[in-house]
Amino acid sequence: MRRMSRPIDFKIEKRLPNSLARAGVISTPHGYIETPAYIAVATKATVKGLLPTQYESFGTQAIIANTYHLYLAPGEKLVEEAGGLHTFMNWNHPIMTDSGGFQVFSLGAGFGKRLSKFLPPEVTPEPAVAVYDEDVATSHGKLAVIDEDGVTFTSHNDGTLHRFTPERSIEIQHALGADIIYAFDECTAPDADYEYQKEAMDRTHRWAKRSLAAHRQNIEANKRQGIYGIVQGGRYGDLRIESAKDLAGMDFDGYGIGGSFSKHDILGILDQVNRELPEGKPRHLLGIGEPEDLFIGVEAGIDTFDCVLPTRNGRTGTVYTRDGKLHVDGASCTKDFRPLDPECACFVCASYTRAYIHHLFKSKETTALILASAHNLFFLTDLVKRIRQSILDGNFAEYKESFLSRYQI
Amino acid sequence: MRRMSRPIDFKIEKRLPNSLARAGVISTPHGYIETPAYIAVATKATVKGLLPTQYESFGTQAIIANTYHLYLAPGEKLVEEAGGLHTFMNWNHPIMTDSGGFQVFSLGAGFGKRLSKFLPPEVTPEPAVAVYDEDVATSHGKLAVIDEDGVTFTSHNDGTLHRFTPERSIEIQHALGADIIYAFDECTAPDADYEYQKEAMDRTHRWAKRSLAAHRQNIEANKRQGIYGIVQGGRYGDLRIESAKDLAGMDFDGYGIGGSFSKHDILGILDQVNRELPEGKPRHLLGIGEPEDLFIGVEAGIDTFDCVLPTRNGRTGTVYTRDGKLHVDGASCTKDFRPLDPECACFVCASYTRAYIHHLFKSKETTALILASAHNLFFLTDLVKRIRQSILDGNFAEYKESFLSRYQI
Repeated sequence: MRRMSRPIDFKIEKRLPNSLARAGVISTPHGYIETPAYIAVATKATVKGLLPTQYESFGTQAIIANTYHLYLAPGEKLVEEAGGLHTFMNWNHPIMTDSGGFQVFSLGAGFGKRLSKFLPPEVTPEPAVAVYDEDVATSHGKLAVIDEDGVTFTSHNDGTLHRFTPERSIEIQHALGADIIYAFDECTAPDADYEYQKEAMDRTHRWAKRSLAAHRQNIEANKRQGIYGIVQGGRYGDLRIESAKDLAGMDFDGYGIGGSFSKHDILGILDQVNRELPEGKPRHLLGIGEPEDLFIGVEAGIDTFDCVLPTRNGRTGTVYTRDGKLHVDGASCTKDFRPLDPECACFVCASYTRAYIHHLFKSKETTALILASAHNLFFLTDLVKRIRQSILDGNFAEYKESFLSRYQI
Repeated sequence: MRRMSRPIDFKIEKRLPNSLARAGVISTPHGYIETPAYIAVATKATVKGLLPTQYESFGTQAIIANTYHLYLAPGEKLVEEAGGLHTFMNWNHPIMTDSGGFQVFSLGAGFGKRLSKFLPPEVTPEPAVAVYDEDVATSHGKLAVIDEDGVTFTSHNDGTLHRFTPERSIEIQHALGADIIYAFDECTAPDADYEYQKEAMDRTHRWAKRSLAAHRQNIEANKRQGIYGIVQGGRYGDLRIESAKDLAGMDFDGYGIGGSFSKHDILGILDQVNRELPEGKPRHLLGIGEPEDLFIGVEAGIDTFDCVLPTRNGRTGTVYTRDGKLHVDGASCTKDFRPLDPECACFVCASYTRAYIHHLFKSKETTALILASAHNLFFLTDLVKRIRQSILDGNFAEYKESFLSRYQI
């Protein structure tokens, strides 16, 4: 009976035989998310270059904002005063907030650009430059100093010193008011050694318990917000599985698979991780991915995805097509009067040519990135919607084969 | 009877007593422009940061693109191959193209930022650095070299050498395919002395005749495009009036008031200029202006306006309100949960607060300039629409008084 009063519920509509793929519906206080679904990234309470009315029209069902960024600016109290994130950013559908762990360690520490979910497997990163030494933190350099209770870090904006604990992250997320919040986790550098990764994972599990307790203790927040735990373990399969087992024993409303890793490391063990998680709860893969990853993720039992790539690629002139990625800012598109993707149903493809968008990129017009980002977000949202439909129709394997046989990576 | 076959027609619906103000309708091959009207600026075939569906919803009736910029990139032949500007940029309503004279001289020559329509009256500019010496042009510096036949200039993009004549400008504008094109004019520096200004004006009149002849000779273009002459004369009232008289004798479909000038110079003699122009033809004031200018322009007999300010101000955090301009990126808006303009009917004011847009500016998010530009373009479009309605309702003077008594310049 207690379960029924939770703000987040998940109903599985259909399971695929011979894989973990399933179609379902997550219900939240701001509506439903039909899964599998692609969640749009709105880090600072805006999807870069796009307006809510636009991505609502693309079929976007939910967005994910970021606790670290919104804490730094405009501050969670201002968002709360504005009526919460939904009102503040004019999105009256489901919202998630990531706990800020990834950003505290990647932006607040010295990992720089090397802390990426998209680190190619062939890259051997140099040792992490994050400093675990409290004395050094006072220098206001790019540092994240960790202790059992939490982490002290510097703002990537101005170098000022801040501190997150699990309780503080949850408190901020309560003020922001997303439908789904995340436990605060320690996000290690992708090159962390096994010993450190194990230590960090164990600490993350202790933080997960504290995050969960902090959330359940807030009666009001607990009524209107659900909480996901985050599976860690870096690139080590056995740690990932251990992490999933430990977290599965905690009463979260769903689970995120997080941390910094090469996507090639994580995708290979995703199904093993998900087998350890409670089948009846939704699973979110944080920060992935590309079209080819979405099929792998769905088969491994992932229900929702988010990734900055649709808008990041869009801003830099790369767009998705049924045949693979296209550099619309490249010379080949100068006189190409076809749509970005001739088979796409988005408003960009209905009204604009590659030649026009190429011209806008060459002319450094803002509308270039708007149109490319809009198409990309539609493309990936639509792709996951089609994957969902193929599960419901029982032809996932055929759809996957037809898409991937054509899509050039 | 010949008049009836013209692609551009103008019907005056109502005149105000005691001023030159009138409300009318310009008919074009792509629909009507109810005047007075604010034309949106789409220099490079896009209104900066906004999409046609957006400004169509604001009540924008027509846009003005630029011959100089579109000739340089993507090139008029590509636009023609794309099906013309309307198809290329997805705007199936009236389009004007400025002839490129202003840009050839301001961007192609060395006038730099000093050639501005908004030069404040207190500024005494230094001598123009445009070089009228053919030998120097080959150095590919920032030069515009003029002769009786036309002007040789360098691209502001890459310094390459190009040449416009009246016939070439018209040819380019035929390829671009706007509903209303402009005669090619020499645009002098705002500090040009009387003697040079007179010489340039006389040459501009000879170019006007050649532009008109080049247009009328192209039977097909003549059927689907109208042509406006451009009144020149710089800051000298008597030259402006002489220019209007001379051009009035030519068979243009309408007239632009152009050139580089302090707006304070031109607004004071605008009614005298317009008295010389044929009453039955539409008049466009190029590159002006601000709310306070629009009332002056309308009273002086202007039918259409265009200006980059709605989007330029929007990009830099300045928005229009009933009370005057507001710096939404300024500290005063940090916790201001009101709309940009509480009395505005635009979608931005319906859904977003100053605090949110302030946050987006501080976070350097593209959506900041999108929302501010959208509001500004709506504001000025709507203002001119209200001015039009006040003429039709016979209460222009009251509307002007009520608006300007509140609006702080």
